[in-house]
Amino acid sequence: MSTSAQIGVTGLAVMGRNLARNFARNGYTVAVHNRTVSRAQALVEEFGDEGDFILAETAKEFVAALERPRRLVIMVKAGDPTDAVIQEFAPLLEPGDMIIDGGNAHFADTRRRERELRERGIHFVGTGISGGEEGALHGPSIMPGGSKESYESLGPMLEKISAKAKDGAPCVTHVGPDGAGHFVKMVHNGIEYADMQLIGEAYQLLRDVAGYSPAQIADIFRTWNTGRLDSYLIEITAEVLSHVDSATGKPFVDVVVDQAEQKGTGRWTVQIALDLGVPVSGIAEAVFARSLSGHAALRDASRGLAGPKPAALSESEAGAFADRVEQALYASKIVSYTQGFHEIAAGSEEYDWDIDLGAVSSIWRGGCIIRAAFLDRIRSAYDARPDLPSLLSDETFAQEIAQAQDDWREVIIAATRQGVAVPGFSAALAYYDALRAERLPAALTQGQRDFFGAHTYRRVDREGAFHTLWGGDRSEVPA
Amino acid sequence: MSTSAQIGVTGLAVMGRNLARNFARNGYTVAVHNRTVSRAQALVEEFGDEGDFILAETAKEFVAALERPRRLVIMVKAGDPTDAVIQEFAPLLEPGDMIIDGGNAHFADTRRRERELRERGIHFVGTGISGGEEGALHGPSIMPGGSKESYESLGPMLEKISAKAKDGAPCVTHVGPDGAGHFVKMVHNGIEYADMQLIGEAYQLLRDVAGYSPAQIADIFRTWNTGRLDSYLIEITAEVLSHVDSATGKPFVDVVVDQAEQKGTGRWTVQIALDLGVPVSGIAEAVFARSLSGHAALRDASRGLAGPKPAALSESEAGAFADRVEQALYASKIVSYTQGFHEIAAGSEEYDWDIDLGAVSSIWRGGCIIRAAFLDRIRSAYDARPDLPSLLSDETFAQEIAQAQDDWREVIIAATRQGVAVPGFSAALAYYDALRAERLPAALTQGQRDFFGAHTYRRVDREGAFHTLWGGDRSEVPA
Repeated sequence: MSTSAQIGVTGLAVMGRNLARNFARNGYTVAVHNRTVSRAQALVEEFGDEGDFILAETAKEFVAALERPRRLVIMVKAGDPTDAVIQEFAPLLEPGDMIIDGGNAHFADTRRRERELRERGIHFVGTGISGGEEGALHGPSIMPGGSKESYESLGPMLEKISAKAKDGAPCVTHVGPDGAGHFVKMVHNGIEYADMQLIGEAYQLLRDVAGYSPAQIADIFRTWNTGRLDSYLIEITAEVLSHVDSATGKPFVDVVVDQAEQKGTGRWTVQIALDLGVPVSGIAEAVFARSLSGHAALRDASRGLAGPKPAALSESEAGAFADRVEQALYASKIVSYTQGFHEIAAGSEEYDWDIDLGAVSSIWRGGCIIRAAFLDRIRSAYDARPDLPSLLSDETFAQEIAQAQDDWREVIIAATRQGVAVPGFSAALAYYDALRAERLPAALTQGQRDFFGAHTYRRVDREGAFHTLWGGDRSEVPA
Repeated sequence: MSTSAQIGVTGLAVMGRNLARNFARNGYTVAVHNRTVSRAQALVEEFGDEGDFILAETAKEFVAALERPRRLVIMVKAGDPTDAVIQEFAPLLEPGDMIIDGGNAHFADTRRRERELRERGIHFVGTGISGGEEGALHGPSIMPGGSKESYESLGPMLEKISAKAKDGAPCVTHVGPDGAGHFVKMVHNGIEYADMQLIGEAYQLLRDVAGYSPAQIADIFRTWNTGRLDSYLIEITAEVLSHVDSATGKPFVDVVVDQAEQKGTGRWTVQIALDLGVPVSGIAEAVFARSLSGHAALRDASRGLAGPKPAALSESEAGAFADRVEQALYASKIVSYTQGFHEIAAGSEEYDWDIDLGAVSSIWRGGCIIRAAFLDRIRSAYDARPDLPSLLSDETFAQEIAQAQDDWREVIIAATRQGVAVPGFSAALAYYDALRAERLPAALTQGQRDFFGAHTYRRVDREGAFHTLWGGDRSEVPA
């Protein structure tokens, strides 16, 4: 057993434990520490043969076990617990040491912590980690922020434990300074919400409009998973839909309460987008759909509201409809990612992070929940043109949407007529149609604002701001 | 001239000045104060004959001019300027005095200020005021929060200067403790955003799909304004659309840059709704539509995207379509208000404000931007059943939507087919269809979350939380 560890992990709940094992399995000596010592002991007892662990019973022992500069990973709950652990360890560290926060912190907290620790010479590396328990153990997608210097020391280790994309590239990159890593992880989760909502809408349409059973829909998703929708979420959707509840013999999806829960990163993604002025309507609809589903009393009170009941299609029509749903899902997915990457670009601009959008799409190709063949194409788009105004400006995506859009519209039309809620599909299409519109009703909005609040407007033919004397002779005056 | 004022106003920009004049015109002696004294002097010189003003050149003079308990209205910018003014005046006040903040403060700031001042025995009355400059002068809708005690002293004065509904009732009520007034004002503005967006979509459809000119559309809005849509915003829409730009002879709406601006209360409404778990998709789409319109470069890069060009209808078809648009607008409006009132109910619950939703709809009937005949009906709904789960549960609204929904769906179908963006109409319909759905795809979402993150799920047939061993034999275990 070594006496000096290259990395330490404190906070050994399932994510921390698996991350520690991942480092050890990759040949690193790992110091492990937990407030309740028994948990650290259990880890070493159970998995000690996987690699070199140093059990540290106290904070001091833990810090002493780390080689300099120290690399100290904290895997505790976001918020106050994270601050408490930082305050416990920071006084024991020396300039040049690194604290890596692998939790789901809000990027604004990460920015504050980085600033405070930087003054003490300590590198604070807010790091997004996606892939759940399995990812933490076998290779997650890793999104570290913090200083370049810290990445030079930490990067090679993270590259080793990270997931690898199909081309062998490690799913980690230095995202950018201070909160950039946690920001990108937040948007990753927002996109994940949108992906899941769109899949849910596709499922509901296949069920209610096409009339397929969950098992049949599982097969359709399996087929889709061999094409351009090839992704982890499509794959597990097929698994969930084909699963039969052993207690009742019913499709599993029919015995689950249809009230979705959420933690907070989806909500944050929308709240921050609102601050940045970025329209992320698809992600917002996904977050709202989850909260709506949870309002059980409101739903109970609303079930009697008037509306059409879907009438299932004939078998031949159903097959054609399923193909259309694939087009609608794909087109809506392109829009979701367009919105998400717009938010990352806006965050990067606002906070001077200089984030490489191609690199971000690249490290999401493996390990994380939204891993998908699709991300290779996003990377190609940004590699070909790093200043792409939006994903929709990429020729390939634009062409694909052009081909998909008739079906996309027909699917929304069918859902609208038959009374199936498709907030995600609809929001995506509205975004697309608004972006390409020659003129938007925003001109009327500006006129109304000038009327009731003298908020002024600009003219298409002259520079400057103007106000119309609505209450007077309606002449126009410069503002 | 009196030597003792019943009320004082500090901060004499246009809103503060007009509010001071409103008090004076209603027979109150008003102390006026402004950091730049000349502004206070100008007010007294210009409008001194409207009533009794006491010009105060310093903070001390201002406070000394007020009868006890003092009523001190601050009309300065939200945020730091408000805190600065509070810190300037609070030390000069005595227990029982009142500071009334009539700006657009964030309700969380109001809660903080109220708490801090309460400790010093001072009543802080965060007060939403809607109606713009004209409203401030002739009668706004007033939404005071703060203590009951402060309302006993202040209420009669506010009732006097407020707008009056058509039945003569003053448009002011004690909304609830601490931040309740500013919260309700925030949601008022969020609803205003949604109303304006829905009107914008109706306009765009009448323009692009029905093929009407702005002047013709103005006439349609004028007709609508005689029916159930009767409201200030519909009225001014007709005014804006019928206005012709004198410089070019073109319709005014065509010479205005179609990039809508916004201040912040719409955004706040959505951000707070996300915190409260309330789906306000219609308001969110309105906020996003404004920010999307402002992304000029992105829009320029997107104008070439593929999509249908609307083909104008024949004259007879156009008339029928306009009737359908009225139905769609009305149904979507019911949904917007449903979402907004849900947010107020959730805020009231979260912060123990005990807000009377019927009273809120009542005080919005006059003075404010969203004043409308419609609000009488909302008041009736809540008067008939104060515990109404949502506006959609009201029999009258439910019936109206039932009658409107075929047209509502057809309008969205036409927009979808013809490529006109209707994010507000679509979000409203998706909300409606999701609420009334027997089952939502949220069950699939829960299955996916359990698969990739062991987040567990509930069953429809048994209490408790469960987890399926997806990576194992797929048996179910209690969580």
